[in-house]
Amino acid sequence: MNKNAFILIACCLMTASSMAQQQLGQRPRVKSPVINADGTVTFNFYDPSAQRVSVNGDFEEIRNQRLEMKKQDNGVWTATTSAPLNAELYSYSLNVDGQRLIDPSNSYVNRDIATLSNIFIVSKTSDDKGHLYSVNNVPHGTLSRVWYDSPTLGQQRRMTVYLPAAYDGKKRFPVMYLLHGHGGDETAWGDLGRASQIMDNLIAEGKCVPMIVVMPNGNPTCNAAPGWWHEGMYTPDGNAFNDRGAKASMEESFMDIVNFMDSHYLTIKKRSARAVTGLSMGGGHTFGISRLYPELFDYYGLQSAAARVQRNNAKFDEQMKRLFDSKPKLYWIAIGKDDFLMQQNTELRQYLDGKGYKYEYYENDGGHIWRNWRIYLTMFAQKIF
Amino acid sequence: MNKNAFILIACCLMTASSMAQQQLGQRPRVKSPVINADGTVTFNFYDPSAQRVSVNGDFEEIRNQRLEMKKQDNGVWTATTSAPLNAELYSYSLNVDGQRLIDPSNSYVNRDIATLSNIFIVSKTSDDKGHLYSVNNVPHGTLSRVWYDSPTLGQQRRMTVYLPAAYDGKKRFPVMYLLHGHGGDETAWGDLGRASQIMDNLIAEGKCVPMIVVMPNGNPTCNAAPGWWHEGMYTPDGNAFNDRGAKASMEESFMDIVNFMDSHYLTIKKRSARAVTGLSMGGGHTFGISRLYPELFDYYGLQSAAARVQRNNAKFDEQMKRLFDSKPKLYWIAIGKDDFLMQQNTELRQYLDGKGYKYEYYENDGGHIWRNWRIYLTMFAQKIF
Repeated sequence: MNKNAFILIACCLMTASSMAQQQLGQRPRVKSPVINADGTVTFNFYDPSAQRVSVNGDFEEIRNQRLEMKKQDNGVWTATTSAPLNAELYSYSLNVDGQRLIDPSNSYVNRDIATLSNIFIVSKTSDDKGHLYSVNNVPHGTLSRVWYDSPTLGQQRRMTVYLPAAYDGKKRFPVMYLLHGHGGDETAWGDLGRASQIMDNLIAEGKCVPMIVVMPNGNPTCNAAPGWWHEGMYTPDGNAFNDRGAKASMEESFMDIVNFMDSHYLTIKKRSARAVTGLSMGGGHTFGISRLYPELFDYYGLQSAAARVQRNNAKFDEQMKRLFDSKPKLYWIAIGKDDFLMQQNTELRQYLDGKGYKYEYYENDGGHIWRNWRIYLTMFAQKIF
Repeated sequence: MNKNAFILIACCLMTASSMAQQQLGQRPRVKSPVINADGTVTFNFYDPSAQRVSVNGDFEEIRNQRLEMKKQDNGVWTATTSAPLNAELYSYSLNVDGQRLIDPSNSYVNRDIATLSNIFIVSKTSDDKGHLYSVNNVPHGTLSRVWYDSPTLGQQRRMTVYLPAAYDGKKRFPVMYLLHGHGGDETAWGDLGRASQIMDNLIAEGKCVPMIVVMPNGNPTCNAAPGWWHEGMYTPDGNAFNDRGAKASMEESFMDIVNFMDSHYLTIKKRSARAVTGLSMGGGHTFGISRLYPELFDYYGLQSAAARVQRNNAKFDEQMKRLFDSKPKLYWIAIGKDDFLMQQNTELRQYLDGKGYKYEYYENDGGHIWRNWRIYLTMFAQKIF
């Protein structure tokens, strides 16, 4: 039965009152999601011919399971969470008869590798995570997509630079280098990580010092995010360019970024004004950078890091010794209890403990997810400079 | 019948060969769109339970009508354009049993007011429009989201600033102010208009001079694009904030932008190094700005402009006289044959003709669409400085 026939029959079966709402070609206006006064969230979706519609999301209640929606007489499917949601940035999609859909009533989406998801924010007080991840009425920093030259990689490359609102072309600022994970790019920390909102808000509240934040692209075979370099609009899959053979690793080419920043921006060119932190693969990059350039940074943050101890490797031991002999002000390891990289991180901590190297450790709930990385960025930014 | 039951029955009915491809939980990998060697484009979409699937797009063949897709044995719907597509940036969506969908295989989307659409580019030669709208291996400018202070509106406001690749902090550059239309914001020209790609490519080919391009937000009651200011993630509808009562109009507050640019960037602060152009409402803003500040700009571009002649209005006549007495180097009017604002533009030209005021006129096919505004930007950029 085709769609038109279905509508025709459906209309014939309708009561007068519902017909008033749903004449042919007249779709009810749908708002979704609706964050209700009591903190519950309602999702709405119009599709009179669908058989089963549900919400997939990362909110606590459903823990990545479906929230089933119910069809109303006017063809609008609806579902409300059974309890108020905690303050947080949430992502979700709809499932309509087995098909994953972006909610057409919500134009706010994030891309994670090749997948788009809708987002919304729940905030209840001015000091909760939802508020921290929101754009508030505070001074805003400048967010730029900047192309720099990487002699090491032989490429023109794109990165994201956040300049604090106080950046006035006269004063100098410390710099945090903020690295993404596997499948990510120079847009990940800004979009999925809400980095500019977190920094704007922390700075406005006096919880961290104004700083420059540099978010480079950590894939040495990609000049930029998908669609933003001359490879065109390829389908990102996180591995698309891995077999190409980069001229150098992210860590080996990292000084190109630091040199560019120090020559093009008003940075404070001192170890005490440099921090580097990254998540997952970017935590691995942070780990590698800490060994390659042991006196460049005073602050290191390994977030859910792919940071494997190299056993019986004299060079590794020597690098680690040199690094910790230089007494960095902070070597911070953060990971969630359920993270699949917990074992690696435990072994790294055992190694550091065995050598008597000083570090800080933070463990919280959850796994290898952006929800945790936003928390880690928030914590790390307040520990540095 | 729920989805799982449907799949169960469908599987029972399948032949052995199709079962090999579609076991429960195993979805075929789908690539979409595919730009074929002969210039046709194929769309693919997996949904074994759908009854009717079609492509809606702005490519010539279907002229905003549906391109019907056919279901294959493996549950993948497919359709190929009957003829090669011209070089262009296209947008499209899918229609699945009456429901408008973003193609889940294509993560490249543009937002127009509240609606997301997929995009793809067809390019055949290095001097066609597809090439011009693509990111090519040329030097790239910096694209920044900048917050400036508007004393006239009493707001901190966001705009997009493009700095040419040659911007090195020493040399000064001319400035083009590029204004969006109703429902747009400071992201529109960059996303829908491909402004940074067009400028990168024109500059690299020596077809226009390196220049700064400023894309402000033309809605005096919105500080920034939806989701990027403290109003939160509201549903953009183009009129959401119109009834709020702005302190001043876009045109009246425009000097705040020029002053900010001239004090924060290396601009050439001369009339001969300033151009302003905009589409639709932004064409109306350009029209208004040309009358309010007649000696500020040497180059004006009215694209599909909402530019109504004020009959029997002495102040209007006086403003127009002062403007054209000042002899701007270019007063350019561009519009498509089918544009709903054609009558207004014809009357404007009649007015200018009647007064003997000098202008240039360009008319092409089509209506009030981004496809034309990308052409107009490309033309205008080559006419100025």
